[in-house]
Amino acid sequence: MDCIDAIGLRTALEAARKSYDEGGVPIGAALVRNDSGEVLGKGHNQRVQCASPILHGETATLLDAGRLKAEVYRETTMYTTLSPCSMCTGAILLYKIPRLVIGENVNFRGDEDLLRERGVEVVVLDDLECKSLMAKFIKEKPEEWYEDIGEIPPNHPTE
Amino acid sequence: MDCIDAIGLRTALEAARKSYDEGGVPIGAALVRNDSGEVLGKGHNQRVQCASPILHGETATLLDAGRLKAEVYRETTMYTTLSPCSMCTGAILLYKIPRLVIGENVNFRGDEDLLRERGVEVVVLDDLECKSLMAKFIKEKPEEWYEDIGEIPPNHPTE
Ligand SMILES: [Ca+2]
Ligand SMILES: [Ca+2]
Ligand SMILES: [Zn+2]
Ligand SMILES: [Zn+2]
Repeated sequence: MDCIDAIGLRTALEAARKSYDEGGVPIGAALVRNDSGEVLGKGHNQRVQCASPILHGETATLLDAGRLKAEVYRETTMYTTLSPCSMCTGAILLYKIPRLVIGENVNFRGDEDLLRERGVEVVVLDDLECKSLMAKFIKEKPEEWYEDIGEIPPNHPTE
Repeated sequence: MDCIDAIGLRTALEAARKSYDEGGVPIGAALVRNDSGEVLGKGHNQRVQCASPILHGETATLLDAGRLKAEVYRETTMYTTLSPCSMCTGAILLYKIPRLVIGENVNFRGDEDLLRERGVEVVVLDDLECKSLMAKFIKEKPEEWYEDIGEIPPNHPTE
């Protein structure tokens, strides 16, 4: 892992831990310039904190980065602690972010294949800290987790 | 067009007009229950008004609807004045919204085919009012429009 990737993943993981400490879904992300390593934006899931179904790590990061010209996104990498859901996958495609670094895809595997099909470079780091933080949360708060990915929890009473 | 579809599209179009009147990107949406026609959420693009790159018509609508159980989305239709971008396409897939009604796809054609491939029912109405409102905006504010879809404007000076 090169130096900029290390900064990017650490920034995303710090955001995820902050969300965990706040009682939220511990998924974080960061948007980083490929040339300078400048962090343009960072953020974490806000389902619990802001009652938001659209602020995932990646979308919260895009919001934090603010309004950027199309050209800027094309020279960046998105870092995320967990494999991206369909919405965040689509946000990466919308802004033509050319590279995605994923902390882990064991607790959840999103739409990585669609990204690869459309030419995005996808790197999976299989990071131990990302995996253990997410596994702990899913065990502690399964209802929040399944809600976040639009899934009906297993063993959910059907009325 | 049945009665609930008429309510859904009208709600989306009213939101789009509100955004236009505020100086924003005039794309609106609404999330409606299939059984009752109840409007669960509505919204419009907020790029200009809130400096948000992630609040499109559809995502603003999901935010307005708030935290919903996975089951609820599965009995709804999303209405949008314009064919959905990749991000909004992904949001519809994330929450497994089974049906999408699009006002028009002439000014922009998004990821409709991906939705159809994944089993979403997609209806395109080719609505005159949606088309003329969007065409007017693109002519008036091309920079905002291209920024909203992550594209470099044509004839954009490269420096
Ligand atoms: Ca920032
Ligand atoms: Ca509402
Ligand atoms: Zn996501
Ligand atoms: Zn969109």
